Amino acid sequence: MAEQAAFPSPHVDPFELTRAKFVLPPGIRYFDGNSLGPLSKAVQMQAYISTTHEWGDGLIRSWQGAQWNTLPQRVGDHIGRLVGAAPGQVVACDSTSVNLFKALTAAARLRPGRRLIVTDAASFPTDLYIAGEVARLTGLEVLNVPAGQIPDVLGEQVAVVLLCHVDYRTAEIYDLARTAHAAHEAGALLVVDLSHSAGALPCDLDANGVDFAVGCGYKYLNGGPGAPAFLYAAARHIRECESPLAGWFGHATPFDFTESYVPAPGIERFLCGTNQVLALSILLRALEVFGEVSIGAIRARSLELTGRFIAGTQERLLRHGFLISSPQEAARRGSHVSLRHPQGYAIMQELAQRGVIGDFRTPDFMRFGFAPLFNTLEEADELVDQIDRIMEERAWDKPQYAQRRDFT
Amino acid sequence: MAEQAAFPSPHVDPFELTRAKFVLPPGIRYFDGNSLGPLSKAVQMQAYISTTHEWGDGLIRSWQGAQWNTLPQRVGDHIGRLVGAAPGQVVACDSTSVNLFKALTAAARLRPGRRLIVTDAASFPTDLYIAGEVARLTGLEVLNVPAGQIPDVLGEQVAVVLLCHVDYRTAEIYDLARTAHAAHEAGALLVVDLSHSAGALPCDLDANGVDFAVGCGYKYLNGGPGAPAFLYAAARHIRECESPLAGWFGHATPFDFTESYVPAPGIERFLCGTNQVLALSILLRALEVFGEVSIGAIRARSLELTGRFIAGTQERLLRHGFLISSPQEAARRGSHVSLRHPQGYAIMQELAQRGVIGDFRTPDFMRFGFAPLFNTLEEADELVDQIDRIMEERAWDKPQYAQRRDFT
Repeated sequence: MAEQAAFPSPHVDPFELTRAKFVLPPGIRYFDGNSLGPLSKAVQMQAYISTTHEWGDGLIRSWQGAQWNTLPQRVGDHIGRLVGAAPGQVVACDSTSVNLFKALTAAARLRPGRRLIVTDAASFPTDLYIAGEVARLTGLEVLNVPAGQIPDVLGEQVAVVLLCHVDYRTAEIYDLARTAHAAHEAGALLVVDLSHSAGALPCDLDANGVDFAVGCGYKYLNGGPGAPAFLYAAARHIRECESPLAGWFGHATPFDFTESYVPAPGIERFLCGTNQVLALSILLRALEVFGEVSIGAIRARSLELTGRFIAGTQERLLRHGFLISSPQEAARRGSHVSLRHPQGYAIMQELAQRGVIGDFRTPDFMRFGFAPLFNTLEEADELVDQIDRIMEERAWDKPQYAQRRDFT
Repeated sequence: MAEQAAFPSPHVDPFELTRAKFVLPPGIRYFDGNSLGPLSKAVQMQAYISTTHEWGDGLIRSWQGAQWNTLPQRVGDHIGRLVGAAPGQVVACDSTSVNLFKALTAAARLRPGRRLIVTDAASFPTDLYIAGEVARLTGLEVLNVPAGQIPDVLGEQVAVVLLCHVDYRTAEIYDLARTAHAAHEAGALLVVDLSHSAGALPCDLDANGVDFAVGCGYKYLNGGPGAPAFLYAAARHIRECESPLAGWFGHATPFDFTESYVPAPGIERFLCGTNQVLALSILLRALEVFGEVSIGAIRARSLELTGRFIAGTQERLLRHGFLISSPQEAARRGSHVSLRHPQGYAIMQELAQRGVIGDFRTPDFMRFGFAPLFNTLEEADELVDQIDRIMEERAWDKPQYAQRRDFT
């Protein structure tokens, strides 16, 4: 006991420790971890190890020697811990859009004879595009309704419900348990897109009864630009699932090179092409930044950050004509805050000039992500300050901000 | 002129220069560049630049600043030069299997009312699996015949012909011009898998009249384990193509976030999810190793290498019971050579113990890739020596070689 007392740490903030694991460029305030999470020191090292040692020295032997062959499952189980999924239900692979195509098609195939995919009309658009193609190929139709009305339109014609857990513009959280219950009551299955929640708030996939989920590796999971995405299928469905992208890495015995396709018994059946080894190695290492911090602690920190920014906005920014489009009720708010303003695009550009980075979503959403692993309360205050100052100075009124260019 | 004469280099072998660009581990003889190409020095540096500078320092700004947004097209055009495609017809993205799914479905949609996909029964298996799923989703059937018989079975019921340019086991080259001509005569379209030819021999996609092609980034293109693959669509088709994986990066204006999908006018319409930035940056740099070496020179070198190994095999290895399963006629032979032997698996393991790496394909194919950019004639001779010695010593006869484990 005496030895432990020699290193007392009653007041260590776990988020000071996680922040220290990132390589954040000096002079930058980064509120875009919900679009592209930052580089961590461990990842910087892993990029070197994966290329020089595993690939360069190990060559083809690293499929076994560096366990490249099990990367999708190992990354998947790690993500599973963050989204409330027991092991063996998540794989990391492909992009979110491609995984959504697999999940929606597999779900539709589990509900033959039904004719509808119901989704939120305000979903992230790629989800709507993919749902449209799945419907076209499987002979279904897509019914778009406002997210809040989804439980009311469910009936025996509905095969699949598709929902984004957190709205990419407003950060509104939709109730997974209630939606899953409503879907199941109607005999339908629920597919959820966790792109704006995984790593930032509890998803509790198993507990909420979600059937399938997909999500993004480069936002709150910090896996790097274009990182592999993930796919969850509830254990109760896996053995019945038929992925429409039945590639060799989803085969039970890919290296037997059999002419006919026999899916792997487990969640690996959702793999398709060769593992994206370098990107998966990096994503795996990025996930280590989460360490022992619980998703509950992350959620509490997230609400502290977004709450602080909203309070500052109410106090000092509403007079400049900003609207807070994110829920002010904590329980309904994800980990970003969106303000609306007619000059939103120009204001974001001027913020960037000052080293404050957020992003913009059409038509007038100024979006600020608060990533619990690295953003601080001081940064939230400084963000309010900077916006206030720009408005005071009318510094957004510059001709070069007239033409819009933006990225994810 | 005098200055030029001061640096005479009449006898510089361009392949000595390309070999020097790779990081080859000492003591290893690598005949598996057809499974996983080796690391190059430029890539080693790029991995650092992409992570530390572009991602770490640039963060979200690098989508414009480091041109992450055009990586699929830039890599695609670079690959286009190697496979005989004019600019604007190739994008690099996703895996070969996923790209094949897109290409086959898009091709089938261009030939409505026809009911067959014809393919080679001995295709690389994932191609057969994907063709099966495309058929299932589009209401077609797959007809598998030996590659040589494909032209004979074509008729007005055939929508699409799918062919691997080079057989992954035997290295037999199939005639693209003849197959394209036969397909077009029947009113069908030709989709080709270039995984075992791109970067090693001329594909001449435009000149041969190929309609669609896909191929692999991690074999002869040396893009690293699980590198992005590529997709080619002939310019004459692009504006009519409908990809079944209609994700936001294939949209004409992804950042307008429109509810309905409007495909990009060009080849970008075959993109789906967010660009795999880190992996694409690495692949782009890997392609620079090709430098100014023409694909014709690469082909000549490839035949020199495989020819040398075949000659050595004939002279010294046939007496040990090996069969040469690759075509001995140069014009019909790709860039690897397969030998068959009942003890093939054990022999490959013993070769690996001695630092000589090739691979094995069921049931008894010992496969040796000869990558023109780095393999040497001396290595081809040494390979013959080593196999001869192992057979003389019966060194394959070890209990640990009984259980098979192998990778791509």
